[in-house]
Amino acid sequence: MPSGEDNLIARYFKPLATDPGARGLVDDAAVLAATGSDLVLTTDAIVEGVHYLPGDPPAAIARKALRVNLSDLAAKGAAPAGFLLTLALRQADEGFLAPFAAALGEDAATFRCPLLGGDTVTTPGPMMISVTALGRVPPGRMVARDALRPGDAIVVTGTIGDAALGLDLLQGRALAASDEGRAFLIDRYRVPQPRSALAEVVRDYAGAAMDISDGLAGDLAKMCGASGVTATLNAAAVPLSEAARAIAGTDESKLARLLSGGDDYELLCGVAQNNLDQFLAAARRSHVQVTVIGVAEDGTTPPRWLGAGGAEIPLKTLSFSHF
Amino acid sequence: MPSGEDNLIARYFKPLATDPGARGLVDDAAVLAATGSDLVLTTDAIVEGVHYLPGDPPAAIARKALRVNLSDLAAKGAAPAGFLLTLALRQADEGFLAPFAAALGEDAATFRCPLLGGDTVTTPGPMMISVTALGRVPPGRMVARDALRPGDAIVVTGTIGDAALGLDLLQGRALAASDEGRAFLIDRYRVPQPRSALAEVVRDYAGAAMDISDGLAGDLAKMCGASGVTATLNAAAVPLSEAARAIAGTDESKLARLLSGGDDYELLCGVAQNNLDQFLAAARRSHVQVTVIGVAEDGTTPPRWLGAGGAEIPLKTLSFSHF
Repeated sequence: MPSGEDNLIARYFKPLATDPGARGLVDDAAVLAATGSDLVLTTDAIVEGVHYLPGDPPAAIARKALRVNLSDLAAKGAAPAGFLLTLALRQADEGFLAPFAAALGEDAATFRCPLLGGDTVTTPGPMMISVTALGRVPPGRMVARDALRPGDAIVVTGTIGDAALGLDLLQGRALAASDEGRAFLIDRYRVPQPRSALAEVVRDYAGAAMDISDGLAGDLAKMCGASGVTATLNAAAVPLSEAARAIAGTDESKLARLLSGGDDYELLCGVAQNNLDQFLAAARRSHVQVTVIGVAEDGTTPPRWLGAGGAEIPLKTLSFSHF
Repeated sequence: MPSGEDNLIARYFKPLATDPGARGLVDDAAVLAATGSDLVLTTDAIVEGVHYLPGDPPAAIARKALRVNLSDLAAKGAAPAGFLLTLALRQADEGFLAPFAAALGEDAATFRCPLLGGDTVTTPGPMMISVTALGRVPPGRMVARDALRPGDAIVVTGTIGDAALGLDLLQGRALAASDEGRAFLIDRYRVPQPRSALAEVVRDYAGAAMDISDGLAGDLAKMCGASGVTATLNAAAVPLSEAARAIAGTDESKLARLLSGGDDYELLCGVAQNNLDQFLAAARRSHVQVTVIGVAEDGTTPPRWLGAGGAEIPLKTLSFSHF
């Protein structure tokens, strides 16, 4: 006599629970077998109307929920081991759940991060999806945020600011974007590209790393603050997509918006100079674009962003904060 | 230049992050060192107005959020290793957060389950607290739900139905309860008592176990269904508190309400007859009350609940379902 909740889980989520540790979702708990690895744990939630828009496609919402966590694992140098899903829904709506679960299953397979368990609850409010992802690293090898050292090259993956522009477009702010550019930027907002392919490279050659979720400038300031160092950045070196460059042009105030916009889900790494060549070569082999944008320095002042002429670019806001 | 979110985390939650693996909450991830144990994972969320009432004390909400997960770990025979907290708040309200965090810290210390990390997000809707708890068992020793065998004694901890009556009282349904009984039952609803002290006994002597969260009758039916067996239960043997007995009396329809009411967070175990004496003796040493209420049997029909006269008690609803 299974309940509606059990039916929902059996129908949509049991097919995703491919790992033996998920125990077919019949239990209240999952098990991860001891392997001699350290376990890396991260949790990130996304809320309708806050982290995604009510009109976003269910498949994109599913991918975002999982991928923001995969991004954290990659930044810590960890290989995905699995995830737990908490889903707070107003109702069990097949039109939402079927594409949501299908996309989640595809991503779980692509990133080798199986569903291990979860909880499904009703809420009278906005939908919320909370994911806890688990990864493995060899003992003692998790890459920390607070280990940036003076002299380290500061490196970012991919391109910066696309997602912030995508959100601007979705929210109706007028930007001069081509149809193609518009589609690209919106996709960058909706579906992050976790740099899982770089995780091992980060672990082997980066001294410090974190993922960029709240804006490059703010997240870099956090990394510097936690590490007790400062940094000088070359704003012109920050990698921009064609679509973002078409919008920002050479306007430094528009560039500032890209540097402080959220939802990049790229990686920010500190790499010791004597590891840099190996890091760059290994990144090339991983087919992940990486760009050196500055250098860490002694000091505790906020990081400085220098424009094309060498003058400092003032940043009004560094990043997104929930409170 | 920390944000409001960072301040909130530093002020209220960093003091709880006592485990070295939490890394002082400065990172996006926590690490659990390899110890040779299997890791048991469970996640349960509570939503304002669904799992607790808007007027419930912040300290009780905090304890409930953690304890419903500790209850799952105990049922799996696992010792707590730590937890991750996702908090969705309408606003950063000190009047809520201060007592919430203080109680959470007390429980984390009491149950030796330190805060390892988390995520704090805004929501325009009801508050939601999602906890992922991690525990350890020796390799291969997690106690399963689907391993009840014909002949096993069916055992429950504590008393059953108190929380359902507490919720009835809070929701204004008229029940004949003394002031003392009323306070006891409401507390049983608000603050579950996870049977962590019994985890090792469960692991050593129970063949199957789960925690009772959606109602004893329904959860037993799930355990039987997952295990491919049925069971016969002696309803009169079900342990009731004095306060519950005062309300239910000998009315079998009222007893049925207790058997199908949710939020017990007691343990339901299947114990092979040749382990039963050791199980009962070890439980006594753990100071956790346990009661044999029936026996598992061959068959796939729903479990039968027999009343004092030996006749079957019909149960209209077995348990709570979200959908």
